[in-house]
Amino acid sequence: MNFASDNVYGASPEILKAVMAANTGTCPSYGEDAHTVRLNELLRDVFETDLIAYPVITGSAANALALSALCPPHGVVYSHDGAHVFEDECNGPEFFTGGAKIYPVEGAGGKIDPDALRHAMGRFVRGFDHHPQPSALTVTNATEWGTIYRPDEVRVLTDMAREFQCRTHMDGTRFANAVAGSGCSPADLTWRSGIDAMSLGATKNGALGAELVIFFDRSLADNFLFRRKRAGHTISKLRFLSAQLVAYFEQDHWLDNARHANAMAAKLASGFSGMPGFELVAPCQANEVFVKMPADVAERLRAAGAVFHNWPSGGDNCIRLVTSFAADEGDIDQVLALAADGMQEPRTAVS
Amino acid sequence: MNFASDNVYGASPEILKAVMAANTGTCPSYGEDAHTVRLNELLRDVFETDLIAYPVITGSAANALALSALCPPHGVVYSHDGAHVFEDECNGPEFFTGGAKIYPVEGAGGKIDPDALRHAMGRFVRGFDHHPQPSALTVTNATEWGTIYRPDEVRVLTDMAREFQCRTHMDGTRFANAVAGSGCSPADLTWRSGIDAMSLGATKNGALGAELVIFFDRSLADNFLFRRKRAGHTISKLRFLSAQLVAYFEQDHWLDNARHANAMAAKLASGFSGMPGFELVAPCQANEVFVKMPADVAERLRAAGAVFHNWPSGGDNCIRLVTSFAADEGDIDQVLALAADGMQEPRTAVS
Amino acid sequence: MNFASDNVYGASPEILKAVMAANTGTCPSYGEDAHTVRLNELLRDVFETDLIAYPVITGSAANALALSALCPPHGVVYSHDGAHVFEDECNGPEFFTGGAKIYPVEGAGGKIDPDALRHAMGRFVRGFDHHPQPSALTVTNATEWGTIYRPDEVRVLTDMAREFQCRTHMDGTRFANAVAGSGCSPADLTWRSGIDAMSLGATKNGALGAELVIFFDRSLADNFLFRRKRAGHTISKLRFLSAQLVAYFEQDHWLDNARHANAMAAKLASGFSGMPGFELVAPCQANEVFVKMPADVAERLRAAGAVFHNWPSGGDNCIRLVTSFAADEGDIDQVLALAADGMQEPRTAVS
Amino acid sequence: MNFASDNVYGASPEILKAVMAANTGTCPSYGEDAHTVRLNELLRDVFETDLIAYPVITGSAANALALSALCPPHGVVYSHDGAHVFEDECNGPEFFTGGAKIYPVEGAGGKIDPDALRHAMGRFVRGFDHHPQPSALTVTNATEWGTIYRPDEVRVLTDMAREFQCRTHMDGTRFANAVAGSGCSPADLTWRSGIDAMSLGATKNGALGAELVIFFDRSLADNFLFRRKRAGHTISKLRFLSAQLVAYFEQDHWLDNARHANAMAAKLASGFSGMPGFELVAPCQANEVFVKMPADVAERLRAAGAVFHNWPSGGDNCIRLVTSFAADEGDIDQVLALAADGMQEPRTAVS
Repeated sequence: MNFASDNVYGASPEILKAVMAANTGTCPSYGEDAHTVRLNELLRDVFETDLIAYPVITGSAANALALSALCPPHGVVYSHDGAHVFEDECNGPEFFTGGAKIYPVEGAGGKIDPDALRHAMGRFVRGFDHHPQPSALTVTNATEWGTIYRPDEVRVLTDMAREFQCRTHMDGTRFANAVAGSGCSPADLTWRSGIDAMSLGATKNGALGAELVIFFDRSLADNFLFRRKRAGHTISKLRFLSAQLVAYFEQDHWLDNARHANAMAAKLASGFSGMPGFELVAPCQANEVFVKMPADVAERLRAAGAVFHNWPSGGDNCIRLVTSFAADEGDIDQVLALAADGMQEPRTAVS
Repeated sequence: MNFASDNVYGASPEILKAVMAANTGTCPSYGEDAHTVRLNELLRDVFETDLIAYPVITGSAANALALSALCPPHGVVYSHDGAHVFEDECNGPEFFTGGAKIYPVEGAGGKIDPDALRHAMGRFVRGFDHHPQPSALTVTNATEWGTIYRPDEVRVLTDMAREFQCRTHMDGTRFANAVAGSGCSPADLTWRSGIDAMSLGATKNGALGAELVIFFDRSLADNFLFRRKRAGHTISKLRFLSAQLVAYFEQDHWLDNARHANAMAAKLASGFSGMPGFELVAPCQANEVFVKMPADVAERLRAAGAVFHNWPSGGDNCIRLVTSFAADEGDIDQVLALAADGMQEPRTAVS
Repeated sequence: MNFASDNVYGASPEILKAVMAANTGTCPSYGEDAHTVRLNELLRDVFETDLIAYPVITGSAANALALSALCPPHGVVYSHDGAHVFEDECNGPEFFTGGAKIYPVEGAGGKIDPDALRHAMGRFVRGFDHHPQPSALTVTNATEWGTIYRPDEVRVLTDMAREFQCRTHMDGTRFANAVAGSGCSPADLTWRSGIDAMSLGATKNGALGAELVIFFDRSLADNFLFRRKRAGHTISKLRFLSAQLVAYFEQDHWLDNARHANAMAAKLASGFSGMPGFELVAPCQANEVFVKMPADVAERLRAAGAVFHNWPSGGDNCIRLVTSFAADEGDIDQVLALAADGMQEPRTAVS
Repeated sequence: MNFASDNVYGASPEILKAVMAANTGTCPSYGEDAHTVRLNELLRDVFETDLIAYPVITGSAANALALSALCPPHGVVYSHDGAHVFEDECNGPEFFTGGAKIYPVEGAGGKIDPDALRHAMGRFVRGFDHHPQPSALTVTNATEWGTIYRPDEVRVLTDMAREFQCRTHMDGTRFANAVAGSGCSPADLTWRSGIDAMSLGATKNGALGAELVIFFDRSLADNFLFRRKRAGHTISKLRFLSAQLVAYFEQDHWLDNARHANAMAAKLASGFSGMPGFELVAPCQANEVFVKMPADVAERLRAAGAVFHNWPSGGDNCIRLVTSFAADEGDIDQVLALAADGMQEPRTAVS
């Protein structure tokens, strides 16, 4: 009953098998191997467009490297106030961009509010050298609050970005969950909605450790190899990452995994929503449930072995439960039973 | 017959097995798992001292992260002129240190010449704010020229570093080869010879991708977690790296691998050294052979399928051959036979 | 009738005279001259404490250099949302700190709201390596909205900073106006209220170009000389800056200048406040007036030769008028007469 | 008898007078004043070409800002091993470029040796992402050893730079001395010899503090305003720097000053060269004399009040004497008499 994060689980058997299969003979290092070539071909099919993709080891690296290709040191990147790039990467984007400003923008349910974005983008004057220059927008899909931007919502933001001469990035750490949850195509959610570059994660969804930087506008990749090497993210035996990613995208493995994780979250959310004293803090559209529940219920769940984090930015008594590709439905049932069970008994107030 | 690099080979079966074995159940992310804890214990045994160690994905990351802990932005890191940190990391150490100067020092056979180091360290005046400040020394062992520093040689350099108030780092990308080749203990080659921090590589010697930053002086690690995260090198499913490294050090697997690689290189070097027109550019002490050979012989080897790089910094007709843990002795024999064969025939000049 | 900024005026005769007087004979460069020594002594008197001070050429340099001494690259600096360091220095603080985050905090009248600060400081968890670390607070006095923090207001914020293990900085670009306007001593407004370091400006208040970085906690200055030199802010003929600053502080020249500027602003504000259709956006406590006035009045003032900026962040029809040490009272009278004159006539709407 | 540096002297009367004259009325800040406009016009005449120029306060700032426009973070700047940018700016160029490598190249008399440059430039492979990329060449004229590159010497180096796809910069801290000493035109020494951008100093040659960044290729200035502001080098009352520079270039004031300084140095060098036990370390072509003299003579000069630095990089007993625009010929005579006087007496060995 571990709901602490999707990365507390290991790797899927399919992906582990692909790693083992890649361990044959010699091949060129640093990305000129057949697995990486195949990966790029596969991604062009998945996204129905030309693109160039680079595997890296973490989502933070993918984000920081991508943003550094979109924003100069004197620029501004606009993100959601609760975005991973703003609060959970220890100033990594600032480091990689050479000191750009990551500007937090408000918005309900983890989504950037268009009016707030317009206000933020309009604040710094283009060409005025005292002001940092609006340069990039990043949106996270699925969001940090387990919601999903639909293509028209992305488009509103990317159109605004273009109006202010900003390039656009999607943080797709949980992109599989967004695709699975929305039923939209990868293309519709990204470049067809105005996205220039993205980070796409596999680690949380079944890989051992493999993330992607993808450029739909290949001109943005001009200095990417140098940026990547300079940051220590050029991996010698890259075949072992690329092989994971090939297995991830082949035969819809990524979407199968995400569908399962989403379904388990939906089951949790659905179960909770009928219980008195429970309140979903954000609609559950992907694989995360943010819920306020009575403190004693949370205690009881923990006492029974459930692992999850308090989530104070969601308000008092808010907790987060994350489901993964490997989530066990029995665990879900047990959590719901434990929670419901408490409903039937008189509870003593917990301070 | 691939001698291009030790990283064109895959992973050893023992290490791959350990990765598979680590894929059970849930565990905390980002380094609080049992594998990482075990790894630190194991390393304390291997090095016979207290220390703290952090797995990362590349040797360039290990070097840059370690050096950034030893040298401020206004500092100078002294390295060999041919060191990986100086010429092969695309200014990564400069990036991570916030713009420190990596100062190249000459020396034969890949080893820093003590007189040249004294000259270099004495050049910038301590406390004089126009001068960048001498801050760190880095030595590579085994060196980029396949030679090995013995403990007394390391000590001469680290004593000088202390005299100039510099901290000390060892780039141990091929440290296993240095230990195996020298017969010295890990402790004798490092902290007992005055080394404060090191990078230690496993990738070239049988891992899928796993390197270490090790601090013998733990006070240097104070901000390491922040540095690592900010650089995108904090890996969520770290168990999969730590498991590789546990397998690497257990039961001397790292030394067995290195001994084989070294023996294969020694066999090549020994065979070449008796052939007319051949000249070893540096003594073969680890797993690399730098040799000048007649251009037509090199051509013939390539025509027969051998893969290796020209190495112009070794002079005209210099090539480099690297052997790995997985090198096939039959390949070595074949290369030597092909080379010797040419010796017995009249050769036509090759332009 | 130029109210565009206090820096559109030249230098005061007293300060210019001091520069001329400093042009005698030879003296050591880079700060070891008698003028700089004298300046430090004088500042210890002015602030009634030990301190160390360094002249630099711009306020942006003073801010960025000071903040870089207080905040590591993985840190967070909290500033007002409208602070110069956040919006008007083109990411200079981010550059000098090596990529720290400048976190904007709301508050009326240019002053940081304590509740908003507590929320912001509490957001990132101390010691959690995914989060940037709370490191420094900066307050501007007088503020960017022409208001003044009193010592008890500063103390509330610096106490909170200490609670969150943050060091404290005051941006005193217009510190003379704050001292003159509050009637408080320099000491009371700064170190006695918990400030560790400050930037103190003279340029806007009568100098040709001279600003100060002052450390009340001298331990923060440990690497300052290196930081300053590395940023190109170590000035060879420093006597010419220090001489300006000595003249600035001697015989209360700085306060005389500021009192005049403040009085002229107060006269403007007082005059405007009685006029129908006028609204002061912030209380006028220093040398800046932020006022909404009918668009046709602003037009008329401009037509008559008055120079000032629209200030959209103050709302529709908000303009800013800045008065300086050299402001001419006749100009003030004329502006008020022009504004009042329009009050008595029927006005035509201006689009 | 102060020969410590050319910056221990104050400002010339002409330049000080121009500063006073600039102190009239209001004018736009930050470079849109008439003085700065006039300065650019004047420089176009002086250099006989279109260009764009920006005043800054120090030569280190000029160098670092200019180089950051020519070299990306993953690039290499080639400089002389003894260049100011390499050894005397506390890693400023590394800071401003975001971590580029400043690569030291040998050469006699402060001039880059073309063969050594070719070797250095050829070392890193274009397009190979492990290698930092050759990006810029910087030459200092007059050099740090008081010698002067003639146009054909500059051309050899800039041609080589272009061959390796590098842009070119001249550090003209003592450019006036180079023009005066060579008799060549400013244009011939710079853009006509292949220079794209330069730093040009006035501070050492009579200004209070004023240096220039000049772009002959204006496309290189695209982001300059942002770079400058971000570094705290955008000066509000810029008129006071520009006025100095206008006076500097008008009526050949800069060349008159430099001719005097050069003549005084030449007189010193000429006098020394006939004395037994004296040896000029580099030919005296500008305003610096590097001379080995018997230790007791140096002692005697110091005892008589002469101020100068030992210059250990010139060898044992090497000292440096710098003459300025304000050097007194009587001082020169006295130094020569003191030195010669010692020649006639038996000397006791000084340890």
